[in-house]
Amino acid sequence: MKAREFEFIFQVAWADTDAAAIVYYPNFFKWMDQATAELFKSIGLPLSELFNQDIGVPLVEAKCQFRRPAKFEDEIRIVSRPAILSEKSIKIEHKVYHQDTLIAEGYEVRVTVRINNGNIVSVQMPARLRNLLLGGDVG
Amino acid sequence: MKAREFEFIFQVAWADTDAAAIVYYPNFFKWMDQATAELFKSIGLPLSELFNQDIGVPLVEAKCQFRRPAKFEDEIRIVSRPAILSEKSIKIEHKVYHQDTLIAEGYEVRVTVRINNGNIVSVQMPARLRNLLLGGDVG
Amino acid sequence: MKAREFEFIFQVAWADTDAAAIVYYPNFFKWMDQATAELFKSIGLPLSELFNQDIGVPLVEAKCQFRRPAKFEDEIRIVSRPAILSEKSIKIEHKVYHQDTLIAEGYEVRVTVRINNGNIVSVQMPARLRNLLLGGDVG
Amino acid sequence: MKAREFEFIFQVAWADTDAAAIVYYPNFFKWMDQATAELFKSIGLPLSELFNQDIGVPLVEAKCQFRRPAKFEDEIRIVSRPAILSEKSIKIEHKVYHQDTLIAEGYEVRVTVRINNGNIVSVQMPARLRNLLLGGDVG
Repeated sequence: MKAREFEFIFQVAWADTDAAAIVYYPNFFKWMDQATAELFKSIGLPLSELFNQDIGVPLVEAKCQFRRPAKFEDEIRIVSRPAILSEKSIKIEHKVYHQDTLIAEGYEVRVTVRINNGNIVSVQMPARLRNLLLGGDVG
Repeated sequence: MKAREFEFIFQVAWADTDAAAIVYYPNFFKWMDQATAELFKSIGLPLSELFNQDIGVPLVEAKCQFRRPAKFEDEIRIVSRPAILSEKSIKIEHKVYHQDTLIAEGYEVRVTVRINNGNIVSVQMPARLRNLLLGGDVG
Repeated sequence: MKAREFEFIFQVAWADTDAAAIVYYPNFFKWMDQATAELFKSIGLPLSELFNQDIGVPLVEAKCQFRRPAKFEDEIRIVSRPAILSEKSIKIEHKVYHQDTLIAEGYEVRVTVRINNGNIVSVQMPARLRNLLLGGDVG
Repeated sequence: MKAREFEFIFQVAWADTDAAAIVYYPNFFKWMDQATAELFKSIGLPLSELFNQDIGVPLVEAKCQFRRPAKFEDEIRIVSRPAILSEKSIKIEHKVYHQDTLIAEGYEVRVTVRINNGNIVSVQMPARLRNLLLGGDVG
């Protein structure tokens, strides 16, 4: 069983730069978060639909290693690879490229939860996501 | 030799929240970055002064574990503890509290560099910072 | 009847700068928003308490004129002056200073609303806020 | 002579939402800024190329009227229309749509400047941009 990979491509916005004329580091985590949202869209399970059902996938852990800076309007490609950690948690590895250079790599560990009036309760992963991660048809 | 600790206290801004009514996770890294900036100020070495000398302390690695969400106008206290990793790199551990509850903990690994016209060259750590980390007087 | 003035003082964060080594302009609006949150706190009506009662004060209009750039760790002082526009709307004028120089000025027009499951309904302004704006005692 | 119009289409990111589950208002200005960057790209004059020549187009004024909130993963379309104000300044009007509904409209007034070691000097507009705005060929 091979993990599927997802790609997210965009250009660095002026908003994401800092006074050193490179991308402000927390924005790499924002990018990972956006890559994850794109991943969910591409399997037909947009996070906005889950959100409307009070389901979210908040973080329990995130890490990133920064190898090269990114600059304004650089084309960035993020390759994301999700994996099951448990019935309620997933790990998504992200590799961040500028052209063919790996400029950063990291991961997010997320849990599936129900969010209701400020209460957050851990719930089972949506079947569609689970199937995808187990290599099944996403369709 | 004991590591010194630094505190940074603030309230969660509306800007830092997301549609789940909790803090958007990359903002925990922004907070760590701000805690580090406060640490440098408190030892008499503001990052803005270093920046005016083309010295910066960019990230090579950052990690955070998220235990509890933070909400709008929660009072947050970050306790930061810097350590020397090498002649050119430091590691700063950050513990994030709401009241007496540890809600997140993580670290940043940073290198001291000279930034000039887009070129970034690793340089030795400023003596003041090194002395501080070796337990000496910061004055 | 004189309008009351409120002050909000802080230093420019690295997060708020851009690749021109000045503050990214939308952050002036973020600052205005934070100055408004501080104003509400200082009259004993924190926006987080209103939010817990499903009351918000979203924007209907915002404008800013930018006279001088702001830089990393500049000390910024925002002087805010609220006024009643109608039973349901207020206008808050903000002047942004670096030392004694006016670097930006603008305003926000906000309405008081009840936000519930994505429905937003205009409501009357909280009496405490109204009294303040009419020059009465805020206590 | 008719002004040209430019379109910028994207989906609302989770990062841009706030605790009211709508887009945090300063992000509408970030979107305008990104629409302007796209406009410059589409006329063959990317802001990153200007930036590498130390040319920038900072703001002197921005305004926005907010008619309807935007939500997570809403598809947003910004229609931007630039106009010459003077030899050194332009005004860009932005209309923000969700589906066919106008949810916000505003403008930016920008000046062309040379930024060098923190000094900002007003300069003439690049000829390519001027030609475009005068209705000429952009090629």
